[in-house]
Amino acid sequence: MSYHFSRTINMPFADAIAHVTTELGKRGFGVLTEIDVTATLKKKLDVEFRPYRILGACNPQFAYQALSAEDKIGTMLPCNVIVQQLDDGRVEVSAVDPVASMQAVSNPALEPIALQVRDALKACVAGL
Amino acid sequence: MSYHFSRTINMPFADAIAHVTTELGKRGFGVLTEIDVTATLKKKLDVEFRPYRILGACNPQFAYQALSAEDKIGTMLPCNVIVQQLDDGRVEVSAVDPVASMQAVSNPALEPIALQVRDALKACVAGL
Repeated sequence: MSYHFSRTINMPFADAIAHVTTELGKRGFGVLTEIDVTATLKKKLDVEFRPYRILGACNPQFAYQALSAEDKIGTMLPCNVIVQQLDDGRVEVSAVDPVASMQAVSNPALEPIALQVRDALKACVAGL
Repeated sequence: MSYHFSRTINMPFADAIAHVTTELGKRGFGVLTEIDVTATLKKKLDVEFRPYRILGACNPQFAYQALSAEDKIGTMLPCNVIVQQLDDGRVEVSAVDPVASMQAVSNPALEPIALQVRDALKACVAGL
């Protein structure tokens, strides 16, 4: 089972982040957190790492449903979408598959919610 | 398989967040992101939700090892530690078990790293 939906796009890195954020917004996902992995690793470990950003995407309606069904599901929220620079100049975007990351959670009430979020994130990446 | 390590503590909510942050720091985890779930749900959906915070904890050394072993593992980083208010006045702290959340990732190189992070987060919660 794959744990992500990925697509490679031809776009400068910063533009790709803005594009992904816009497309997530069209499907009701706000970006609540953003981690600049490159800057963090440089600052903390003084290592060089390719441009790599982690966007924490959250659809409030789905999040509310999930939290109401499973009180500790916040350990797996928000759903991350990563943007990373490839060697060939292109940019790869990957969204987590929440059905994969939440497979250790045994809660039938959570499944239909995770499936809906999966579909939305999958469609978002496919439409980039 | 459980997907989290949890402990209930007697402490005001704000103090619990500070305490958890300090204890994570002792084990090399910085809090890179923080989501006030209560405020977000109030703002976006106008619903009331108990005090609930999602802390995105990251140990840079482990994160660097994980990212070097598996380029899309950023879809599952950072490791979340949630703090939520219980009805009885106590506060529950839960850290994700990265071995559980990453079980869909088939990469033998990642396993020892996830196990080390699991041990560190488990010890952190147990020591609260």
